[in-house]
Amino acid sequence: MLELNFTCPVPLPAGDCILLAHGGGGTLMNQLIERVFLPAFSNPALDARHDGAILSIGGARVAFTTDSYVVQPLVFPGGNIGDLAVNGTVNDLAMCGARPLYLSAGFILEEGLPIETLRLVVESMRQAAASAGVSLVTGDTKVVDKGKADGIFINTAGIGVLEHALAIGPQSVCPGDAVIVSGDLGAHGIAILSVREGLEFDAPIVSDTAPLWAPVEALLAAGLEIHCLRDLTRGGLASTLNEIATARGVGIRIREASLPVEEVVRGACEILGLDPLYVANEGRFAIFLPAAQAAQALDILSAFPVCRRAALAGEVTAADPGLVVLSSRIGGNRVVDMLSGEQLPRIC
Amino acid sequence: MLELNFTCPVPLPAGDCILLAHGGGGTLMNQLIERVFLPAFSNPALDARHDGAILSIGGARVAFTTDSYVVQPLVFPGGNIGDLAVNGTVNDLAMCGARPLYLSAGFILEEGLPIETLRLVVESMRQAAASAGVSLVTGDTKVVDKGKADGIFINTAGIGVLEHALAIGPQSVCPGDAVIVSGDLGAHGIAILSVREGLEFDAPIVSDTAPLWAPVEALLAAGLEIHCLRDLTRGGLASTLNEIATARGVGIRIREASLPVEEVVRGACEILGLDPLYVANEGRFAIFLPAAQAAQALDILSAFPVCRRAALAGEVTAADPGLVVLSSRIGGNRVVDMLSGEQLPRIC
Repeated sequence: MLELNFTCPVPLPAGDCILLAHGGGGTLMNQLIERVFLPAFSNPALDARHDGAILSIGGARVAFTTDSYVVQPLVFPGGNIGDLAVNGTVNDLAMCGARPLYLSAGFILEEGLPIETLRLVVESMRQAAASAGVSLVTGDTKVVDKGKADGIFINTAGIGVLEHALAIGPQSVCPGDAVIVSGDLGAHGIAILSVREGLEFDAPIVSDTAPLWAPVEALLAAGLEIHCLRDLTRGGLASTLNEIATARGVGIRIREASLPVEEVVRGACEILGLDPLYVANEGRFAIFLPAAQAAQALDILSAFPVCRRAALAGEVTAADPGLVVLSSRIGGNRVVDMLSGEQLPRIC
Repeated sequence: MLELNFTCPVPLPAGDCILLAHGGGGTLMNQLIERVFLPAFSNPALDARHDGAILSIGGARVAFTTDSYVVQPLVFPGGNIGDLAVNGTVNDLAMCGARPLYLSAGFILEEGLPIETLRLVVESMRQAAASAGVSLVTGDTKVVDKGKADGIFINTAGIGVLEHALAIGPQSVCPGDAVIVSGDLGAHGIAILSVREGLEFDAPIVSDTAPLWAPVEALLAAGLEIHCLRDLTRGGLASTLNEIATARGVGIRIREASLPVEEVVRGACEILGLDPLYVANEGRFAIFLPAAQAAQALDILSAFPVCRRAALAGEVTAADPGLVVLSSRIGGNRVVDMLSGEQLPRIC
């Protein structure tokens, strides 16, 4: 009797074990959050699923956020795990529209780590904190046996204050909003990958890791009606836009020709088979605000070197609810889906 | 010609690599803090070297603290890494005299971890947070390749508010203070070690992991003039007292006969060659307050099961500055030093 053994080349959904993709910012990570974390801890601040929680403390509106950093290699072109750990959490506060004030740092060190490496990382954290105007006020150090970690893992948590009355978050996004991208996409992810894979390009690709509070502060100071801010980290622009389209039941339409991507990054992505829309950034963010204010926002951003290539990428629509649609250079439309697997593990 | 090859049985001081002892709460960890972290990040909140930073936010006095948890095994008698991660950070806030309000949680998961294990840990965190009256409001998940972590590492950071005007911290400790220990010592460390080493005792030894805000709140509500609170985690009572004696330049005298240690823990320590004074606790703390208020404090503590064996352990003296001196049962005195090496790695 003939037996047919089909095998399935498509990645299976999560079985009963954690996969690298559960940390990738895509569908599997969202499932983990929705099925394991949110049911256990549900509360209004957490359920908002913003980059940080907005709390009321002592009469002030305070943002509180955390991120762990497990990037590999520890040092890469343009930065290392230390400045990444400071900038990343500073940026999560900035995305809440909060002035970053205080950071905590928790270090998990692997036995055998050269103390010189730790000093280098700590010095980068010092410089990054000074640039961003935050103080590192409390910390913790744990050491685990050799082979039970990977050099250094860092967790930072951050506290910031909101000095405005806006409700910045996915809940404020609505049809008619413009979508601005603050700079060119994909440099951080490609910088990491090029070191990992030993690739060399004509022009070196340097991570975009940078603090983003200064441009956000300028947008707020101008009185713009900002609806939402999101940094474009794990999963890149595509995942961020999908999360917001799904959360708000709106459509988002972006134009390929308007998306800034450096030539060398575009070339590297082609060689590596990656889509820059999904590659992680560590110094780039998306801004949602009324279309009538987009030109003013772009004008303000142009004063900041980190936003030199800011661009109007698209708009929020009532049509196509839940979908992100890309108008390609050659005039076609395609749906930009949420990544289900893992494009680049341990990017941050 | 005769060659003599001496080897040295005493642990060497830190060379140029991280040792397990750098995470042990003893001399090497203090050196790491003093030589690497404090010079880079120096600021008044950090330099106070308390269990958390005291900040002024929106007119309120706020405590902010963080800890990473790398305990092995993940599940042990009396708890697991999940409730430990909640209780530990809740307790660091309580030791600042702050009402714990909000927690963040950062998970670092190893590829291949059974999702059931994660669910178990998350459920314990939920229960512990509910018991302690805190909300987990923001989080992050990273996944690293198999073999690059050890199941689950958790970082929690916490925010609490101070509802009193006391300056609770090492700086307020002074000669004449009583030293109260809130319960029996050593159960957490021995519970972990007994699982790791496969030891069985007549009576099972269960971790003391517990939230400590309730007894602290009661002490504060009674208007006691609390000078300092410290939970007796890594390095145990001995390390805590040494840190305070050194920081304040005072002596601390404790009486062996007054230190509560369960018989089964004392027996296990003897078998294992450990000193219960150095073994980690996760639900025990020391209280420094004027001697005249010690009886009232003990009376208040007696209402809380977690403080059932609270005892007046000793007092702060002007004599013997920087030293912790133990009066033994047989009438002798010995200096209780800071541990230089690592007694029990990965205890929390």
